[in-house]
Amino acid sequence: MEAKKVPAPTLRRLPKYLNYLKRMKENGNVTISASKVAEALDIQHTQVRKDFAYTGAEGVPKIGHQIDELIRCIETFLNWDNVTDAFLVGVGHLGGALLGYNGFQESGIKIVAAFDIPEKSGRNIGGVEVYGVEKFKQMVGRMKIKIGIITAPADHAQEIATMMVDSGIQAIWNFAPRKLDLPEEVIVENVDMYSSLALISHRLKKKFGK
Amino acid sequence: MEAKKVPAPTLRRLPKYLNYLKRMKENGNVTISASKVAEALDIQHTQVRKDFAYTGAEGVPKIGHQIDELIRCIETFLNWDNVTDAFLVGVGHLGGALLGYNGFQESGIKIVAAFDIPEKSGRNIGGVEVYGVEKFKQMVGRMKIKIGIITAPADHAQEIATMMVDSGIQAIWNFAPRKLDLPEEVIVENVDMYSSLALISHRLKKKFGK
Repeated sequence: MEAKKVPAPTLRRLPKYLNYLKRMKENGNVTISASKVAEALDIQHTQVRKDFAYTGAEGVPKIGHQIDELIRCIETFLNWDNVTDAFLVGVGHLGGALLGYNGFQESGIKIVAAFDIPEKSGRNIGGVEVYGVEKFKQMVGRMKIKIGIITAPADHAQEIATMMVDSGIQAIWNFAPRKLDLPEEVIVENVDMYSSLALISHRLKKKFGK
Repeated sequence: MEAKKVPAPTLRRLPKYLNYLKRMKENGNVTISASKVAEALDIQHTQVRKDFAYTGAEGVPKIGHQIDELIRCIETFLNWDNVTDAFLVGVGHLGGALLGYNGFQESGIKIVAAFDIPEKSGRNIGGVEVYGVEKFKQMVGRMKIKIGIITAPADHAQEIATMMVDSGIQAIWNFAPRKLDLPEEVIVENVDMYSSLALISHRLKKKFGK
């Protein structure tokens, strides 16, 4: 199965399964059926079976899956059993919150250093040191970092992304509300929280007036 | 213009313009052209003009827009000049980070109370009090809250969303990695950070092996 290109929607659903399976395990369950997962998460059961098959997990008819094994298969498939180090650029409110959150380690990412203008260097947020951005390239090379996180303002995002790629970064998790123009081989995922707020605010206003 | 339904992509772009315009203003600029905004943010200039027109902003030929006025038009259009109070449910790592972040006020949302299991009540994070979730409905009614934020685990998200809507919540900002099944008139915006991480991790692994 590994050779086939895995559809993005399958990859996006896997964390949902993982989250649910871990809670089922915590609650003392040992086995689970694809149908039960499907029902709990409101996903078609044929889809759940297909998604599980991509990870190499094999269920037993009438019993279903060993939860432990299913968790292991999904984590290995996502490479979440190996924590990958990441650098973050932009230590404003949002960057600070991500550093303080530090809840991504079980999702395979650990922020090991943060960067901003020299005036902000020397700080330590949630155990992560802040460096001047001029040190970024050298540290990426030395620590063999592949993932960069951008939490800088929108109009600095492109410049930072280009600098990241020039430094050897292969994947960018972009929280700046701006589309990045980068070589095709660079993996880019955008999380735009403000666009959600724009929709919510405007639509509430339309519905209720001021 | 107000009567026409505004396309979601326009609404999602408006915060990007706002962000850029505020920085241009900070840098001492007084006027700006749609073309300059278009170039800086890599959006078609015809699109920028259309988007601005929705907000009622009027430019002057050869001069462009007064930045102050353009900011005011966009903020009013998004209702970001009125801060709307919101309740958050789920004070785990992510919920705590959002409470500590508190950077959404200039995007029209202020979290004024948080809710979780009774054991977590009484805490105060970033100036926001945590209450037992059994108080949610009563407080929504008393404080006339319209926006609910879900930062709870995926398998509690539906139950919480239903409880929110039953309590009178009109718009939900959902950070739980799960699709919510709700009446059509409820405004729902999903932010799924883990699905981004799944794509990044799996694709990096495919590219580089272990």
